Amino acid sequence: MNVDGRPYRSIWPIEQHAVAVIDQRKLPHEFVIAQLATWEEAAVAIQSMQVRGAPLIGAAAAYGVALAMNQLSRNRADPGTDAEVERVYAALLATRPTAVNLRWALERMRRVLGGCAPPDRAAAAWREAAAICDEDVVLNRAIAQYGLALLRRIAQSKGAVQVLTHCNAGWLATVDVGTALAPVYAAFDAGLEVHVWVSETRPRNQGAALTCWEMAQHGVPHTLIADNAAGLLLRRAQIDMVLVGADRVTRAGDVCNKIGTYLKAVAARDCGVPFYAAVPSPTIDWQIAADAIVIEERDAAEVLSMSGRNAEGVTQVVDIAPRATRAANFAFDVTPARLVSGLITERGVCAAARADIDALFALPKSC
Amino acid sequence: MNVDGRPYRSIWPIEQHAVAVIDQRKLPHEFVIAQLATWEEAAVAIQSMQVRGAPLIGAAAAYGVALAMNQLSRNRADPGTDAEVERVYAALLATRPTAVNLRWALERMRRVLGGCAPPDRAAAAWREAAAICDEDVVLNRAIAQYGLALLRRIAQSKGAVQVLTHCNAGWLATVDVGTALAPVYAAFDAGLEVHVWVSETRPRNQGAALTCWEMAQHGVPHTLIADNAAGLLLRRAQIDMVLVGADRVTRAGDVCNKIGTYLKAVAARDCGVPFYAAVPSPTIDWQIAADAIVIEERDAAEVLSMSGRNAEGVTQVVDIAPRATRAANFAFDVTPARLVSGLITERGVCAAARADIDALFALPKSC
Repeated sequence: MNVDGRPYRSIWPIEQHAVAVIDQRKLPHEFVIAQLATWEEAAVAIQSMQVRGAPLIGAAAAYGVALAMNQLSRNRADPGTDAEVERVYAALLATRPTAVNLRWALERMRRVLGGCAPPDRAAAAWREAAAICDEDVVLNRAIAQYGLALLRRIAQSKGAVQVLTHCNAGWLATVDVGTALAPVYAAFDAGLEVHVWVSETRPRNQGAALTCWEMAQHGVPHTLIADNAAGLLLRRAQIDMVLVGADRVTRAGDVCNKIGTYLKAVAARDCGVPFYAAVPSPTIDWQIAADAIVIEERDAAEVLSMSGRNAEGVTQVVDIAPRATRAANFAFDVTPARLVSGLITERGVCAAARADIDALFALPKSC
Repeated sequence: MNVDGRPYRSIWPIEQHAVAVIDQRKLPHEFVIAQLATWEEAAVAIQSMQVRGAPLIGAAAAYGVALAMNQLSRNRADPGTDAEVERVYAALLATRPTAVNLRWALERMRRVLGGCAPPDRAAAAWREAAAICDEDVVLNRAIAQYGLALLRRIAQSKGAVQVLTHCNAGWLATVDVGTALAPVYAAFDAGLEVHVWVSETRPRNQGAALTCWEMAQHGVPHTLIADNAAGLLLRRAQIDMVLVGADRVTRAGDVCNKIGTYLKAVAARDCGVPFYAAVPSPTIDWQIAADAIVIEERDAAEVLSMSGRNAEGVTQVVDIAPRATRAANFAFDVTPARLVSGLITERGVCAAARADIDALFALPKSC
């Protein structure tokens, strides 16, 4: 997607010796490209949310493995033992617990490296990480088209379409194009009259900081609201569809996504508004049950304070609660499949139900 | 309630020439008493949310009328014409649209002044405003006891009770004691094991800034959460009761309250958790239908920025969205009666239904 008219991905390799990422902690106030030169830096980038969004976390971890292969071969004569590969795998896997794309990408990297002679591993790792990125873009383009069909149907009956989204499931959350926002961009580009309500997504404000920024770069009409305001808009029939991304979707169709998603889904159901999740298949966890998903708990400071830019243009962190206040900071919740109208995947739209998901991906029943 | 061990109300008269209020825009970082010397200052205090909370808005408006009576009699030989009283009434009524307590208090003041000879009006106004305040405390003490019985029942079966509240319906929102928090304080004082989840209540953060501050002053265990986190806690059965205040309740039991209340109510219903509103009778609007309630829309700046205290202890307003972002800022929503488990009033707990509300208040059917 374009930034100030110039095309960017959210992550890209620099001649197989480093990885460039857009530093998402600096947005929307500054557009900064950060370079990651080691796998440890990649791990910190994921952990500190310099990069975030389930698909991008997977891509960053894949490039982390590629960086590790460089380091292992650079530091010594041999390009790393299997044990060393395992250590890197485990460390990157531990950076964040909830998005399954992280494990998916790392397992894919491990599988490829396991099939390579050690001297070939670095080149193979860079190739595979690039493939993961390119495939992410392909998946998201397919999601864009399937989601566009849903939006087009609404626009045809109503003349315009009002979407509510939560957090950032745009191109910044992926390598490019986005998941939940992919159909929105496609609708806008197709000339549909589309407007997006963006919920700010406390505590880290990815809606306010990232989704509003992306939308503005592309020119998509949008309005920021407090997370609390979604219910009123749903009750007033000012939203035609709730459209979110996902961090992990169970085979039964339960959608683990940014904290606050469930509140929107249950209100959407109460108001008769469809609730869809845009889900590329690497986000599907074929094994896990909803109640086994680990919900990341982050630093209470994210709830107790807020980062922004003051009148002098200086980024400041301000405390919003009394000094001794205790806070809990759960990063995700799980929307049960019964509240999900459908999943928009790269293979098409399906019901959030095991039989439908299985049928779409044509998996053997024993998988 | 106590502040640093010293008892305070949120509003009190100073020898019939001024009114003292706790400046709620300065909390939690500074405890500042502001003095209002004119009715225009009282109007600004309500409008700017120096005082807020439905019952306190009513009390402040009542004292605004008393200040006006002083001004009218001071400025001229006569103590004000009926037309001048009407002008003050209308101006104070226009300060904020949603809380019905404002209209209730002003109508009561107007009724009393209408029955007074002009020379007696100032004294009568100060008396009536004080009566409104004293009665508010009495109503809230009754709500405390009826709500305590509900909490006690939970504590008896579970050993402890976990309450979720939204915004601030504590003593700061009233003259004293509080509405939704009144039963919580009573439970704490009665030795029940009670813990309160406080949702921060964007965009103005009354939960983080006011409820956490009040709770800490009284020693009630509490944990601050992002508004988005309420659903996860409900799903995990970590909340036994949702307990909120109200700005206007219809005779049919629909609860207009701070934006975000409906999301909590609908999620509570989905999770089988009771949802109660604490409602002193001046908050009941006997005439209006839910869809006729005017939902205040406030400045977009409240959504686009956040106020807090930086590391140097300086209060700063920081922007959290891109500069050109458009935002919508609805201050209230309406939770339909079907999602409300009950109303806790000064006369007892009743179902959120017309027949039950009427029966409790024993109104003639034609009212």
